[in-house]
Amino acid sequence: MRELLLIGIGTGNPDHLTAEGRRRMAEADLILVPRKGRDKSDLAEIRRAICADAAPLVPVAEFDLPVRDAANPDYRQGVEDWHDAIALAWARAAGGAARVALLIWGDPSLYDSSLRIAARLDPAPQVRVVPGITAIQALCAAHAIPLNAVGAPVLVTTGRRLRDEGWPAGVDRLAVMLDGETSFRGLDPQGVRIWWGAYLGMAEQILEAGPLAEAGPRILATRAAARARHGWIMDIYLLDRETDDRRKDGSGET
Amino acid sequence: MRELLLIGIGTGNPDHLTAEGRRRMAEADLILVPRKGRDKSDLAEIRRAICADAAPLVPVAEFDLPVRDAANPDYRQGVEDWHDAIALAWARAAGGAARVALLIWGDPSLYDSSLRIAARLDPAPQVRVVPGITAIQALCAAHAIPLNAVGAPVLVTTGRRLRDEGWPAGVDRLAVMLDGETSFRGLDPQGVRIWWGAYLGMAEQILEAGPLAEAGPRILATRAAARARHGWIMDIYLLDRETDDRRKDGSGET
Repeated sequence: MRELLLIGIGTGNPDHLTAEGRRRMAEADLILVPRKGRDKSDLAEIRRAICADAAPLVPVAEFDLPVRDAANPDYRQGVEDWHDAIALAWARAAGGAARVALLIWGDPSLYDSSLRIAARLDPAPQVRVVPGITAIQALCAAHAIPLNAVGAPVLVTTGRRLRDEGWPAGVDRLAVMLDGETSFRGLDPQGVRIWWGAYLGMAEQILEAGPLAEAGPRILATRAAARARHGWIMDIYLLDRETDDRRKDGSGET
Repeated sequence: MRELLLIGIGTGNPDHLTAEGRRRMAEADLILVPRKGRDKSDLAEIRRAICADAAPLVPVAEFDLPVRDAANPDYRQGVEDWHDAIALAWARAAGGAARVALLIWGDPSLYDSSLRIAARLDPAPQVRVVPGITAIQALCAAHAIPLNAVGAPVLVTTGRRLRDEGWPAGVDRLAVMLDGETSFRGLDPQGVRIWWGAYLGMAEQILEAGPLAEAGPRILATRAAARARHGWIMDIYLLDRETDDRRKDGSGET
């Protein structure tokens, strides 16, 4: 493997693919597609459809994604070992191909381990990254809202952080990712709005928004029902907190 | 105007356009292109090339973008008036077209006023947003680096905030946008790394990275020379601060 292309393909809408992503796929010698134990066959099918459309002449190699040893009491070491195993699986599946493409949901730079796994390949290939539409962007587009308030910062964070540390100081807008546990439940809903989305960009897309006190319970019910129906869910949300300052100067939206 | 499409086109690389952006452009009755007083003819040409390629049959209407009255002592009111004037300019340039597309650098949701301006149109059209590759993504892709440290948050903020408030508490990674004044100069460089990029995605792309103490002065010189050569510059950077915690557990990269 002389060159490894990490290609962001967006959130499940084949139309999220950029012209660059399309071209890089077509130029590859091989496209690697991981098979996961979890039942996300809808996603595997989207990926296959993207390959067939963008790079019909390029062979596709499916491989079983190694599973992390959750029994390892040293979490950090468990992740290290797991990433080593994935790098090995990539190298094996690549065989003799010189230019290998790997399709990444969203964007390879955001909460994705592929760059860190690629750094373990020996010999080291040249790694190229093709950016793709993230779930944050798909969420804002679907709700037709800005990510940031005028000139104000936004914190991109995880469900675990929100659960463990509460609302972080000094920022009124949060984009929360990787949250399988609807961690917004732990917040004081006073003055907080939420914009939530699941299956963003896909035909199954669901959106909810409103003051957290009202929309929160609605989202919990909608999310549980959708998850039961599909067998899996990918969701994300944006939170906005009205501060005293903004109430005073009248620019708060709530 | 019955429908307004805000289409993110990425950072200057025509290949950043998504399949969705391409399709929505081709389906529009009219594409609006603002003419700015500032000499960014390179950008205007990229936009024209994207139109010619993606939507050769759709008419393009250029219009003069109103200028903000910088003499207004009430900054907030000055911006309000300016946005009113832009909404009026859009409506006039649209003429009788029902489905109007507006091309937005980057993504319409990130530090862009188009959604707020669109809310002033009367009668209100249906507003649709098509996400596009942001400068943050183009920066990370060009450097082949992740935006976030493992499981850690990232603050997306502005040069003004960094200048006025210093490094924000509780977060070790910052993506700094809208910074015409290289505000990283005001930081204590100890333990800070920077990844900087200008003209991202374009043929003129320039990248610099390293410990802020060394890379900072190099970036200042490179940036000043490039700006003088092109007459304009668009740049962005990512900062990472090594904390005591990370030094202790050995996961810091510096």
